[in-house]
Amino acid sequence: MQQMDGTADSPELERLYADFGAADTAPLWTQRDDLMPFTPEPRAVPFVWRWKALLDLAERSGELVPVGRGGERRAIGLANPGLPGTAYATPTLWCAIQYLGGYETAPEHRHSQNAFRFVVEGEGVWTVVNGDPVAMRRGDLLLTPGWNFHGHHNDTAEPMAWIDGLDVPFAQMTDVGFFEFGSERVTDEASPDVSRSERLWAHPGLRPLSSLGAATSSPLAAYRWEHTDRALREQLALEDEGHPATVEQGHAAIRYTNLTTGGDVMPTIRCEFHRLRAGTLTPTRHEVGSSVWQVFEGQGTVVLGGTEHHVEKGDVFAVPSWVPWSLHADEELDLFRFSDAPIIERLGFDRTYIPGVYDSGASGVAR
Amino acid sequence: MQQMDGTADSPELERLYADFGAADTAPLWTQRDDLMPFTPEPRAVPFVWRWKALLDLAERSGELVPVGRGGERRAIGLANPGLPGTAYATPTLWCAIQYLGGYETAPEHRHSQNAFRFVVEGEGVWTVVNGDPVAMRRGDLLLTPGWNFHGHHNDTAEPMAWIDGLDVPFAQMTDVGFFEFGSERVTDEASPDVSRSERLWAHPGLRPLSSLGAATSSPLAAYRWEHTDRALREQLALEDEGHPATVEQGHAAIRYTNLTTGGDVMPTIRCEFHRLRAGTLTPTRHEVGSSVWQVFEGQGTVVLGGTEHHVEKGDVFAVPSWVPWSLHADEELDLFRFSDAPIIERLGFDRTYIPGVYDSGASGVAR
Amino acid sequence: MQQMDGTADSPELERLYADFGAADTAPLWTQRDDLMPFTPEPRAVPFVWRWKALLDLAERSGELVPVGRGGERRAIGLANPGLPGTAYATPTLWCAIQYLGGYETAPEHRHSQNAFRFVVEGEGVWTVVNGDPVAMRRGDLLLTPGWNFHGHHNDTAEPMAWIDGLDVPFAQMTDVGFFEFGSERVTDEASPDVSRSERLWAHPGLRPLSSLGAATSSPLAAYRWEHTDRALREQLALEDEGHPATVEQGHAAIRYTNLTTGGDVMPTIRCEFHRLRAGTLTPTRHEVGSSVWQVFEGQGTVVLGGTEHHVEKGDVFAVPSWVPWSLHADEELDLFRFSDAPIIERLGFDRTYIPGVYDSGASGVAR
Amino acid sequence: MQQMDGTADSPELERLYADFGAADTAPLWTQRDDLMPFTPEPRAVPFVWRWKALLDLAERSGELVPVGRGGERRAIGLANPGLPGTAYATPTLWCAIQYLGGYETAPEHRHSQNAFRFVVEGEGVWTVVNGDPVAMRRGDLLLTPGWNFHGHHNDTAEPMAWIDGLDVPFAQMTDVGFFEFGSERVTDEASPDVSRSERLWAHPGLRPLSSLGAATSSPLAAYRWEHTDRALREQLALEDEGHPATVEQGHAAIRYTNLTTGGDVMPTIRCEFHRLRAGTLTPTRHEVGSSVWQVFEGQGTVVLGGTEHHVEKGDVFAVPSWVPWSLHADEELDLFRFSDAPIIERLGFDRTYIPGVYDSGASGVAR
Repeated sequence: MQQMDGTADSPELERLYADFGAADTAPLWTQRDDLMPFTPEPRAVPFVWRWKALLDLAERSGELVPVGRGGERRAIGLANPGLPGTAYATPTLWCAIQYLGGYETAPEHRHSQNAFRFVVEGEGVWTVVNGDPVAMRRGDLLLTPGWNFHGHHNDTAEPMAWIDGLDVPFAQMTDVGFFEFGSERVTDEASPDVSRSERLWAHPGLRPLSSLGAATSSPLAAYRWEHTDRALREQLALEDEGHPATVEQGHAAIRYTNLTTGGDVMPTIRCEFHRLRAGTLTPTRHEVGSSVWQVFEGQGTVVLGGTEHHVEKGDVFAVPSWVPWSLHADEELDLFRFSDAPIIERLGFDRTYIPGVYDSGASGVAR
Repeated sequence: MQQMDGTADSPELERLYADFGAADTAPLWTQRDDLMPFTPEPRAVPFVWRWKALLDLAERSGELVPVGRGGERRAIGLANPGLPGTAYATPTLWCAIQYLGGYETAPEHRHSQNAFRFVVEGEGVWTVVNGDPVAMRRGDLLLTPGWNFHGHHNDTAEPMAWIDGLDVPFAQMTDVGFFEFGSERVTDEASPDVSRSERLWAHPGLRPLSSLGAATSSPLAAYRWEHTDRALREQLALEDEGHPATVEQGHAAIRYTNLTTGGDVMPTIRCEFHRLRAGTLTPTRHEVGSSVWQVFEGQGTVVLGGTEHHVEKGDVFAVPSWVPWSLHADEELDLFRFSDAPIIERLGFDRTYIPGVYDSGASGVAR
Repeated sequence: MQQMDGTADSPELERLYADFGAADTAPLWTQRDDLMPFTPEPRAVPFVWRWKALLDLAERSGELVPVGRGGERRAIGLANPGLPGTAYATPTLWCAIQYLGGYETAPEHRHSQNAFRFVVEGEGVWTVVNGDPVAMRRGDLLLTPGWNFHGHHNDTAEPMAWIDGLDVPFAQMTDVGFFEFGSERVTDEASPDVSRSERLWAHPGLRPLSSLGAATSSPLAAYRWEHTDRALREQLALEDEGHPATVEQGHAAIRYTNLTTGGDVMPTIRCEFHRLRAGTLTPTRHEVGSSVWQVFEGQGTVVLGGTEHHVEKGDVFAVPSWVPWSLHADEELDLFRFSDAPIIERLGFDRTYIPGVYDSGASGVAR
Repeated sequence: MQQMDGTADSPELERLYADFGAADTAPLWTQRDDLMPFTPEPRAVPFVWRWKALLDLAERSGELVPVGRGGERRAIGLANPGLPGTAYATPTLWCAIQYLGGYETAPEHRHSQNAFRFVVEGEGVWTVVNGDPVAMRRGDLLLTPGWNFHGHHNDTAEPMAWIDGLDVPFAQMTDVGFFEFGSERVTDEASPDVSRSERLWAHPGLRPLSSLGAATSSPLAAYRWEHTDRALREQLALEDEGHPATVEQGHAAIRYTNLTTGGDVMPTIRCEFHRLRAGTLTPTRHEVGSSVWQVFEGQGTVVLGGTEHHVEKGDVFAVPSWVPWSLHADEELDLFRFSDAPIIERLGFDRTYIPGVYDSGASGVAR
């Protein structure tokens, strides 16, 4: 223990420090630089999980671990090595590979935590959200906003795996979560191509007059790959024709939105899809807030904090806050991304820095 | 002239009233009940214009009146008989039939007034909005929000007619309008099936990352009939299956929205489409604010202020503020509607009264 | 009648124009430039009403016209000469001088129209808003947002006059108004110095936990002169000390706000108070939307559309949309202002042009 | 390690669990009930720190530990025993006692973290926020929103202590913080009674026309005790007179607000002040989100999670999420409170439960 100026401690000072602890207090001055670094210094580290390894673990779990009430889901969380003792991908985000064998069912429950599923391959499972069966197919984003009952059932003989994204770490840290068991079986075992939610809501720019008002989360349960793919193709085609449409040259991207507000799909999680033309290299970005990416198709390189990682289909990587990142597409590269940006932005902490290009905090105002 | 209590005027009082006028003033007490009626007493009247008559006038205009710079548009305004000396459909809304002969062009211009077009029949014209050619086809809603350059050109030998809706009366009354001439020809004579605006925006729940933020008006230039029709069909099918989806039994409806906010397409004009099953009778509604309807398909009866009017394809009718209205569908009845509801709601004047069912002002609070 | 190109009409064309009228329609092309001028061309004119003349008329009315149920108020509306047949100060705003003799009462009523009172001289009247007696004193702004019961009573032997501001013309044009009679006497004849509304709300930056949420209009019934005066004095003192505080050199100003939102006091009316140091000349401004000013203290010159008017205490002047205006203070000059800016801004029509300085529409975007 | 159904693990399963760890993953099913409890199960505990003990430690620190660059502040954090290894009062909130000896200066710096100070006794220090010296006196709330430079200097020979509140734990957990050193001395050593911020902003319902728009945090640097006290007195007086004004019988309370929005003073921290009449007992509340209270004056009992604690002037207590709390006033009891409610509400996690009275989640929708 020492003083602010680094001199050795006197016996009185030793006693004082001891008394701090005894009184359930602690001095700021000995920990100020850890508590308040000059720039964010996340404990979470940039990390890549390989899809093959994840899928192998999921398949072995499928053989050895039954799915059912209590454990609820055969989901394997991606555990950031910088956050030991947890299974958190980043300090705010949970990401897991979930696996359902042929004809299996994951029972219904609901929780305050917001959740989504994204399908990198396979099909055959229906997620039933508040009684509405929603088909899960390659490239689809499926939403389960907080406090909606949901279960999953596999309507085929083939197993299926996908990734789940939740705000579990954030909810855990802020103590906001409620949980409730529902039906052991899904409440509607039908397997329609299109959910009722989509039939009511998935019409561009049209909303039912029976459901006006801004909802906390999107009422649309499924964002289908055919729409995402078409939107990205059109952006690149418009770029070719000389019109503004892409984020930057060769980089198309869409944000999934809450149809009732135009904002993020859920209050804590942003979801996006990015497509890079072969050869595209994005500028290096520093962003406040953390995100998780999954390669959907193609191969490329992600540079995280200066280290290059080759990535391919299914690989998942975490980008902690302020860690500089850029992407290079060896061939056309498709990536799904989710992040805690809605939290960061709603609370006024957002800041982006692209060296040589842009600094939203350069004026001396981080916000 | 008389006093509040109805007694005859003294010479002093006569002199006072004369002096009021000379001083550019006027007493409130002699006009209070006109200025502040117990319920809205619009000068505009409920009125029906027949499509056949409108189309006949438009065709004759097509033969006799060239379209070009200065007059700008071959548009014939629907003039509410209660608002003599104007061509206003209601105190806030302009509605006109516009007609463009084979290969004709209406030159480009822009204005603060918000505008849309709705197509009850025909095709072949492209409206070019800020250089983006937008095909106009039966059932489509096409937007031209304030201050966007726009012209129209007919790419075929066949004439085409449609209705225009604008906030011209409102802008006239509040003195907010600016106007600017643009190109004499449309700036892009291409005739693509799909506009660039749609290619960028018409993907359900997806927005381009290159264009975030809430826009004053919708960035989507065209709302296509195929989407509107499918949305309405699905609502009725969901109703058949026992799920909430329609406004009321047998009455499906969608609101066209600004994709960036989930709100109305333009700040002054609400657009909706309604479908009634054959036999459906809607409850009588009193609403603050005025609207204009056009029958798109089918036949039925509209009751306006107690008077029944048989209406069929293309017929347009105006509903002034607080005039009770209900609809009866003789056969499946499709109607397009636009109104000044965004003005009314943004300024806190909205109130709806459905006798025996609902009164948003019943608690003694007009809102 | 003639064609767009100015050639004489054929008999067929004559017949067509006649048929337009018979069919309750009218062509756009003959009226386009009136309906859509290049810049706003208000019918209302810039105009100055003299306080001495208004007060003289009010006093004579006090002798000759009793106040009571039916006529409701002894109020004399300022009638813009450009809007003949009305008593409107501008197309959207009503302004009147109201007069209450010693011990007189103006009975209670309520209406959808939003109202305020501003006191240029005198005291002794309490306006009772929803049962809460609110003292009216020199320099105070008193609010009566839509649908609140209100009456006035003079608790002294001395008469009192003040100005009323309402959105009556706007409500009349859009047909949104409801009206209801209340008590013939005010429901609380007490005459406290401070209203209950102020006791609950007039604490800077503090709101009662019992009343959260954003209200349509401000819950504060009275904005007292002592606060307004102090705020303006401080702005000028801060300017003297070298700190940013004023609108421009020598020009202090405050906006009255809705405490629950920080926005305008009522959804249709903006209220402000301006103070110019002696010698200050403001730059010429063109603004979309209309406003009414009253000189509270001092003397100066207002230039309206290029014409100079000397103004002094109590004089009221109207500034229609886009009419250029500037102020010159011969001595320290205090002015109250109200306008329809909330309507203009909420609907996206706002635009300001200060020649040589600023044009919010210069980028080719009216907003 | 075991399966979901509790059976013993096979060797294959043992190997699988080992491989989970080796692959930086972890199964959900073994930790689901910890990650997603039925109701919030905070690690933080309800806890009371005694003012006398805190002040004693602060005074001893004042003798032994100089204040200066690096350590920056002589602040002693209140360390919740449920969060060992940290000095966090709750998972999101930092609370410290800060102490400045006679004529001492705490150097200027700025950080993304939002901060305030609340003064339970003493005076003589000026906190200088972006160059504006703000006097700190008993009962005052002083704001330092994120990224504003600030330092403190004691202008007297007497030491002074107060509490600091920050969102340090939240910023730490989400990795959003930036930090920058400023001047070693405060940039303005003047000691005015009133800050420039107050001169510009502390006028009820009035805002400077030079500073419109909604700000992320309140522009008002000081909320003075005289206003807080008067607001609370008036609420109780209005209650006595039979008018609605208090939260519940005998319980007056105000929320400090951002003048530009009517919302919370800062995006992550809510500040309130509560006054209970002698004898008042509040109903037991469960609330999502954590808070910290300080007794300002009087004596009473706080029941936290069923345990009674006698509290008196200066005592600080923490209430973790969902821990039931109620207050009893032995004599008139004044309390300052701050909480993370803006985080909880902006992200849609808010829920309140008052047994027998109210449950915002009772309808089956936590939000």
